[in-house]
Amino acid sequence: MKNCIIAQSGGPTVAINASLAGVIDAANRMGYDNIYGSLNGITGILDENLIELTGMSSEKLAILKKSPAMYLGSCRFKLPKMGTPDAEETYRKIFATFERLEISAFFYIGGNDSMDTVHVLSAYGKNIGSPVKILGVPKTVDNDLCETDHTPGFGSAAKYVATSLLEIAHDAYIYDKKSVTIVEIMGRDAGWLTASSVLARTAYSAAPHLIYLPEMPFSKEKFIADVKEKLSTFTQVIVAVSEGVKDENGNYISASTKSNDAFGHVQLNGTGKTLEYLLNDALDVKVRSIELNVLQRSAAHLSAKTDIDESFALGKYAVKMAEEGITACMAAVKRITSSPYTVTYEAAPVDKVANQIKFVPTDWINAEGNDVTDALVEYISPLIVGENEIPFQNGLPVYADISHLIH
Amino acid sequence: MKNCIIAQSGGPTVAINASLAGVIDAANRMGYDNIYGSLNGITGILDENLIELTGMSSEKLAILKKSPAMYLGSCRFKLPKMGTPDAEETYRKIFATFERLEISAFFYIGGNDSMDTVHVLSAYGKNIGSPVKILGVPKTVDNDLCETDHTPGFGSAAKYVATSLLEIAHDAYIYDKKSVTIVEIMGRDAGWLTASSVLARTAYSAAPHLIYLPEMPFSKEKFIADVKEKLSTFTQVIVAVSEGVKDENGNYISASTKSNDAFGHVQLNGTGKTLEYLLNDALDVKVRSIELNVLQRSAAHLSAKTDIDESFALGKYAVKMAEEGITACMAAVKRITSSPYTVTYEAAPVDKVANQIKFVPTDWINAEGNDVTDALVEYISPLIVGENEIPFQNGLPVYADISHLIH
Repeated sequence: MKNCIIAQSGGPTVAINASLAGVIDAANRMGYDNIYGSLNGITGILDENLIELTGMSSEKLAILKKSPAMYLGSCRFKLPKMGTPDAEETYRKIFATFERLEISAFFYIGGNDSMDTVHVLSAYGKNIGSPVKILGVPKTVDNDLCETDHTPGFGSAAKYVATSLLEIAHDAYIYDKKSVTIVEIMGRDAGWLTASSVLARTAYSAAPHLIYLPEMPFSKEKFIADVKEKLSTFTQVIVAVSEGVKDENGNYISASTKSNDAFGHVQLNGTGKTLEYLLNDALDVKVRSIELNVLQRSAAHLSAKTDIDESFALGKYAVKMAEEGITACMAAVKRITSSPYTVTYEAAPVDKVANQIKFVPTDWINAEGNDVTDALVEYISPLIVGENEIPFQNGLPVYADISHLIH
Repeated sequence: MKNCIIAQSGGPTVAINASLAGVIDAANRMGYDNIYGSLNGITGILDENLIELTGMSSEKLAILKKSPAMYLGSCRFKLPKMGTPDAEETYRKIFATFERLEISAFFYIGGNDSMDTVHVLSAYGKNIGSPVKILGVPKTVDNDLCETDHTPGFGSAAKYVATSLLEIAHDAYIYDKKSVTIVEIMGRDAGWLTASSVLARTAYSAAPHLIYLPEMPFSKEKFIADVKEKLSTFTQVIVAVSEGVKDENGNYISASTKSNDAFGHVQLNGTGKTLEYLLNDALDVKVRSIELNVLQRSAAHLSAKTDIDESFALGKYAVKMAEEGITACMAAVKRITSSPYTVTYEAAPVDKVANQIKFVPTDWINAEGNDVTDALVEYISPLIVGENEIPFQNGLPVYADISHLIH
């Protein structure tokens, strides 16, 4: 018997199901007898909550490849650290399941935390002499994983962010009165996704006029001065700001305004809202803020073909790694050239990925800390290219039936 | 000489440029010598801020037809009421410009307020014996204009709302823990757009589980009870709520929570945020809120083909009305059958449209006031059908160059 288990974890992207489809497709071709899907991340293995993915039809795989979020669900469970009381029992249980189901490979599709799981499971497996190959497939809209040129899911999210910024700009330009529009974009630590808003600039529109990433300390006074300066040149000023911007002491800007609900309890506002209130007090122009929210990671109808194809290829590559006897590694993208855009795939040691964050290099941010450089544009541009043909029925996109996740 | 002027007003939709393209296309064919575009609504005529649209190429028209927001810009200016001090001078100035430029028809593309402008200008023109045909072309994502089966822009916004709701549902279903997701949708007075979220329901997903429109008084206590009841059946509960929901005294729900900014000033929160805070206090589950914001009226990359084609046809129909000597009317859609979906176009007297609001009929809302009926589904379903092929370049949609609006 030749069996494998696949699981997904972390936050959704529109490409994580493409990687799942890639693993299933390659495992089908490689003659795996049973391909199990573990529901809700690693917890599906612990609770023996598995579904059969073997022999999924090519029609279903095609739909799955372009469906948002996670067909197998996610979890917020973190494996106990080795040495803690629960650890030994938890790890033994996972490997006992691997043995009982005659698993030869486990594929975990996820971000930083998931790569940590791949790392610690590999180490435990090595210790006990387990033959199971433990392999990671990257994903995150944040693009903050090391050892890979970029992460699956990022290109599509960047395409959504840039397209939305362009559409918001068209919306803003209709009035002849001064105004400021603040667009809040995901990214608690790394500013890649906010930086991708720069691609919205066209021959006729300079929006976003200002871009703020969490890599640089954020000063409210400097921000007000920046906006005032732009308003002296432009009638409409559009600002892209990362949710994760922090002041020079490392405190989130969003922590500085609070709401009182009906019961007088204090609730925290978002970064965009906080900056909107700040400008409302400082300026005499119309100010509004827009939070792109979860749609930037879920809008599969606007995914990038480059991203979906690469994510699918990385899933297939992970199966190839297992066939070649590789373990404790993550399937990674290596860029050969930017123009024309060419890549290859390789195995990256997962211990170099786990618990690391890849930030936007400071020399890709301008000296003023309110824009990005051409080097960053050159890096991101090829990642948003290409459109996926999504099947529509009755005016709505057709996505994978996820009834097994819905209770 | 046979000349005409076109202007756009009100809030953006993704179909208002399709109507503009329809007017230009028909006027070109009808042999108009000069087709003027008035920038920023009626103020472009008052300030003589006009651009030439005559002979726009078919390539440019094709791009314009699918571009978001307003190629001619909008304005917040409302014509002074007849009898007020400024009125006579303002109206005389408009008609003097019409006469000087040898205008035979004026086309105003807009919503309620714009149809009021068409109404009062027609009345003034009739009084002074002006031969200029004054005609309206409807648009509004709110779908709240009378005398037309529905409004251009609504179908595309409804498609965006339903698609986004479906994608948000996929995002929510990944976790196995109870949660509530509140989606705030546009519509201050009429609930059409919020109601369209019902189309997101599929064979596998019941989301949105609850739908609240401004046509029914909103009770916070009833809302909490509704959510609790749904949580007893479903792990994830997704709520669609109109920004305009009000309590039984007619006060906006959004008025009940306030923020204190850095200077201690009070700012109003949105409806979704207000309900999120309310549930955070009442329930012991994760609650989040998402405001679809301006993208629901600007996301041209996801427009409905039915909507764009009808909007274009209505623009052409308005020119036909002018040719036939009709004035003081709005081009309207008349539905013949829902299944198969067939329509015709007709002239609606603009005095029956101006300053009226078409609400969702209460018998299209369920008795509990937290869902809509099948009759509403039957009405909206055909309006979101069809996808438009949008040209993409370097991964981004190509929209009309609006440099004439950008200063």
